[in-house]
Amino acid sequence: MSLRIPGPTPCPENVLQVMSKQMINHRGKEFAELLNKVTSWLKELFQTRGDVFILTSSGTGSMEAAVVNSLSPGDRVLSLSNGVFGDRFAKIAETFGADVTRVTFEWGKAVDPDAAKRALDADPAIKAVLVTHNETSTGVTSDLAAIGSVVRKYDKLLLVDAISSLGCIDLQVDNWGCDVVVSGSQKGWMVPPGLAFASISERGWKANAEAKMPRFYWDFAAAKSYLEKGQTPWTPAVSVFYALEIALGMLIKEGLPGIFERHARLGRRTREGVKSLGLSLFADESCASNTVTAVKSPDGVDSKKLVGIVKDEHGIVLAGGQGALMGKIFRIGHLGFVTESDIDDVIAQLRLALPKVGYQVPA
Amino acid sequence: MSLRIPGPTPCPENVLQVMSKQMINHRGKEFAELLNKVTSWLKELFQTRGDVFILTSSGTGSMEAAVVNSLSPGDRVLSLSNGVFGDRFAKIAETFGADVTRVTFEWGKAVDPDAAKRALDADPAIKAVLVTHNETSTGVTSDLAAIGSVVRKYDKLLLVDAISSLGCIDLQVDNWGCDVVVSGSQKGWMVPPGLAFASISERGWKANAEAKMPRFYWDFAAAKSYLEKGQTPWTPAVSVFYALEIALGMLIKEGLPGIFERHARLGRRTREGVKSLGLSLFADESCASNTVTAVKSPDGVDSKKLVGIVKDEHGIVLAGGQGALMGKIFRIGHLGFVTESDIDDVIAQLRLALPKVGYQVPA
Repeated sequence: MSLRIPGPTPCPENVLQVMSKQMINHRGKEFAELLNKVTSWLKELFQTRGDVFILTSSGTGSMEAAVVNSLSPGDRVLSLSNGVFGDRFAKIAETFGADVTRVTFEWGKAVDPDAAKRALDADPAIKAVLVTHNETSTGVTSDLAAIGSVVRKYDKLLLVDAISSLGCIDLQVDNWGCDVVVSGSQKGWMVPPGLAFASISERGWKANAEAKMPRFYWDFAAAKSYLEKGQTPWTPAVSVFYALEIALGMLIKEGLPGIFERHARLGRRTREGVKSLGLSLFADESCASNTVTAVKSPDGVDSKKLVGIVKDEHGIVLAGGQGALMGKIFRIGHLGFVTESDIDDVIAQLRLALPKVGYQVPA
Repeated sequence: MSLRIPGPTPCPENVLQVMSKQMINHRGKEFAELLNKVTSWLKELFQTRGDVFILTSSGTGSMEAAVVNSLSPGDRVLSLSNGVFGDRFAKIAETFGADVTRVTFEWGKAVDPDAAKRALDADPAIKAVLVTHNETSTGVTSDLAAIGSVVRKYDKLLLVDAISSLGCIDLQVDNWGCDVVVSGSQKGWMVPPGLAFASISERGWKANAEAKMPRFYWDFAAAKSYLEKGQTPWTPAVSVFYALEIALGMLIKEGLPGIFERHARLGRRTREGVKSLGLSLFADESCASNTVTAVKSPDGVDSKKLVGIVKDEHGIVLAGGQGALMGKIFRIGHLGFVTESDIDDVIAQLRLALPKVGYQVPA
C-alpha cells in the first residue's frame, strides 16, 4: 500500500529503523546532544536565527502554541484564510478569546496580500495576522514573502502555519518577517507524526512577554529555559527524536536548494500527470502547491468512491476532500519521501481506476 | 546502559520492533481498527466503562486536558499535593484561572483523606479536587479509594493524575468515583513516550458541558466525536500506537491481578535491597510506591554525584531528586518492563558505587 496523502507521509527505511532504538533518559547527556543537534538543524531549515522549539504534539498543537504564546484575550486578530486549515487557525484564536476578523479567499485561490493591506488599513487596532503558507485542504501555496512585507509595513505580528510547506517549499522565516512559524514532523520532514516545531522571532518574544492567554504545556518560555539545559519541559517523544535526527541529517545534506527543487519537480510532474488524464486541477495553477495537488473529481463522480477504488484495487492511498470539498476533490500528497516514479505510478493507477467510476480517460 | 528511572521506561523488544513499521493513513480503516482495539483495552485496564481518549502529548499534556475539560475560570478547586507533580497539577489549574486552595502534605507522606474532608467542610464552594495517585517525585502512593470516597460524599469532581500508577497499581476508576484520570505511555505501559490517556466519567461529561476554560487541542468533545468514526481529531503519533497495541496486548494477557502482583513484588524487592545497603527509604513504608522508590542520600553525599557514578561507571541510569529534593534523594524506577533480577543488579551496583562517595555499606 503506497501512502500518497499529505501526511503522514512515508518515511525512509533508515528513519523507520531507528525508531526501534531503546529508550534513553530524556534528562541525560545523550538526549541533550540529540536535542541540541536537531534544534540547530531545524534553525537552518527554518532559515532563522531565532529560537526553534520541538513540541510533543501534532501540528494542530503547534498552531495552538503559536496563538497562546503571542496573544491576550480580546486582542484583535486578522485571519487570512483560504481553506480548512486557515479556518482552524482562526477558530483556535477565537477559542482562546481573540477578537478575530476573518478575510476569506475563494478555496483554490491564494491569499491576496492586497486584501490583507486593506484589512489592516480598515482596522488599526489589529495586533496580529494569522496565515497558512500552504493550504493542505486545497493544494494552494500563498505568497508569504508578499504577505510578510505587508504585515511588516503595518508593524503587526505574523503567525504562520507552515505545517505542510516547511522543509519542502522556500520559507525564509527571518527575511520574510515571520514571528511564529509552526510545522509538523509527519510532513516534508519524512518523520512519523508526534513532534511539532515552532520558531519565534525577537518580536515574537516581546509579544510573548505581554501575552495573557493561559498556557502551560505549550509555554515557549518554559521550552526556552529547558532548552538551555538540553531538555524539553515535559517528557518528549524520544523515538520520534531518533527519527528526526536521521531525517534532518538527510535534508541538511541535500541542502535547501535541492529540497525546494525536488518538490518543485514533484509538483510539476503531478500536475502534468493529472492534466494528461483530462482532469482539472482544483487550485489556480499560479498558486498550485508543490507539496499537495487537489484534483476536481470528474462530473458526477463522488471522489470518495474513486479514492476507495484506488486504495482497494490499486494499492494507493489518496486523500479525499475536507469540509465543503468532501466528495468533490481528491488530493495527492507529494511531499517528503516521494519520487517522480512514485508519482508516475499514481497517475498510471488513476488511469486504470477512473473508468471504473465511469470516467473515460482521453487517449 | 540500563534505564531505571521512573519513565521513560525500557520497552520490550517486540514493542520497539513494531515502531519501525511504515506509516498508514490515520483517517483510514486500518488505523480505526487499531484505535478501537487499544481504546477498548485501555478501558479494561482503567477499570472503567466510561470514555477513554488517547492524546498525542506527554503526561503533562493530559493533566492540562483534565483541567481545561472540567473547569471554568474562577472555579474553586482543592489541590491535595505531596510533591512536585501534585504542585504541577495545581499550577496548571491556576494558570487557566481556577481559584485553587492548596492543602499540602509533607513530602514522603501520603495525602490524608481526612485533611481532604476538613478542607471540603471548610469551603462548600469547592467544585473539584485534584490529586496525584502516585507521586513520582517522592515515591509515595496515596489511598485513592479513601480519597475518592470522601470526594463522592461531598459530591465534588475528582481529577486524578495516575501517570505513574495506572497499568501498575490498582486504580478502580469507576468504583472509586474518579471523574477524569490521566496517564502517559512511557510509564508502566512499556511504550515509548508520545501518547497520553484520559478517562472521563458521566459526571465528568456533565462538568465538561459547563466548563468554560478554553480548549481546542485537548477538547474531549472533539476526541469523542472523532473516536466514533475511529479517528483522533488531530494527526496521532502513529508509531507509538503500533507500540501501544503490542504492549497492551501483553498487559491484557497478563491480567490486572498479575500486573499488580508483579509491581508489588518489584516494589518489595527494591525496598528490601535498599535497606540491605543500610540506606533509608525517603517515603513512609506504609505508603511506599510499587513503581518508584525514593532513597535518602547518605549523610553528606550529594545524590547527583552518586547518580553520576552509578551511570558512568556502573551502566545504570537512576533518577535524582526534583525540586527541593535535588541532591538529597535518588530514585529507582521499577515500573513496566523490569524484572526482579534487574532490581538485584541495581542493588549490586549501588553496593559497589556507594563506597566511591565515601559511604561504607554494612557487611
